[in-house]
Amino acid sequence: MGEVKSKRMPRAVRERQMLDAAVRTFGRRGYRGASMDEIADLAGVSKPLVYLYLNSKEDLFTACIRREAAALTAAVRAGVDPTLPADRQLWEGLLAFFTHTAENPDGWAVLHLQARTTGEPFAAEVHAMREEIVTFVTQLIGDASRAGRRDRELPLQEAAALAEALVGAAESLAAWANTTPGVPARQAAGTLMNFAWAGLGGLMEGRPWTPPERAQIPVAAG
Amino acid sequence: MGEVKSKRMPRAVRERQMLDAAVRTFGRRGYRGASMDEIADLAGVSKPLVYLYLNSKEDLFTACIRREAAALTAAVRAGVDPTLPADRQLWEGLLAFFTHTAENPDGWAVLHLQARTTGEPFAAEVHAMREEIVTFVTQLIGDASRAGRRDRELPLQEAAALAEALVGAAESLAAWANTTPGVPARQAAGTLMNFAWAGLGGLMEGRPWTPPERAQIPVAAG
Repeated sequence: MGEVKSKRMPRAVRERQMLDAAVRTFGRRGYRGASMDEIADLAGVSKPLVYLYLNSKEDLFTACIRREAAALTAAVRAGVDPTLPADRQLWEGLLAFFTHTAENPDGWAVLHLQARTTGEPFAAEVHAMREEIVTFVTQLIGDASRAGRRDRELPLQEAAALAEALVGAAESLAAWANTTPGVPARQAAGTLMNFAWAGLGGLMEGRPWTPPERAQIPVAAG
Repeated sequence: MGEVKSKRMPRAVRERQMLDAAVRTFGRRGYRGASMDEIADLAGVSKPLVYLYLNSKEDLFTACIRREAAALTAAVRAGVDPTLPADRQLWEGLLAFFTHTAENPDGWAVLHLQARTTGEPFAAEVHAMREEIVTFVTQLIGDASRAGRRDRELPLQEAAALAEALVGAAESLAAWANTTPGVPARQAAGTLMNFAWAGLGGLMEGRPWTPPERAQIPVAAG
């Protein structure tokens, strides 16, 4: 009967079912805690078929990381319309990010929690995705700066630092929102937008935070 | 000769030397990559003495995490003067955080990178420290809100979300600053202060980011 079922379903569909089951299991149990038996059961296939398609537990975990990383970066990129003003781009990017992580909590757990805490080679896979998002956000901040500051451009290193801060804030808040009851994606995105924009927005318009008592806050040279 | 040396030096001093060597080795090589031989060599003691004092590699790593976590939270708490205005408290807290992580890059690598990516029971140790810092920052944001917003108080959940965002941003930026040449602690703290304050500050004074085209950004109910 397994044979018949296997012939009816195209390989791509079956493979997607296995990856769905694997993301769910790895996301909840971690790499070491997940068993191939459980993944095969959840996918409704035999364990040998999982090995035939995905080769090993390590390759299966890597395939999960790559699929979820690609889906997340695609969702964020698709959410941002580069013809809109910078604050609107940021809002839509944040909304796309928090919506995707809320709708795919197991995928987010694989990326943010499990892959990073399991050691190599998995941490490097996530690191590559993170670098891609940081580069994207750095460009967005640089573009916004060129549009907003007529006097001088935000230095690239400062844009990169702000992108690191924003991505770190988003990661932390997404993990919190996914484990705190009653925090919809739109609310989490709104919180970060309110936190970030007036600050970033002030910088873009050349209005940094002003320290009391001339505390000599360094502003990067333009 | 080892015997004589061992008698001359108080246990507390010797243990500190071992922990210094262990933090440096774990921070650079990770838990699995670090060898007890290397740690003993670096501390200038015999390997059996390390085991006698710290029991096992696992206990030694746990002792490193606890020492570095306590030092970091103490540095941040000591940096914040609760009698100052909220923006000044935030600035001093950030400056203390980035100064400590810049001066103790191996300790920061143990906490942020190695302990979190080695699995349990180590990740839980760091998680406990992180919770303590998030709670501290949540209180700070709540206090600032009560001082700044005469109309209505920031809900606790919103203060907790902002604290998660701020701590995530600080962690991400500290890791970046420690691996990017030419980013002194004061500059990293200034970047995050500028990023965060006008945004947080706007919220405190009841001026959230205003969306264009009435995009229905949710503001948590007060």
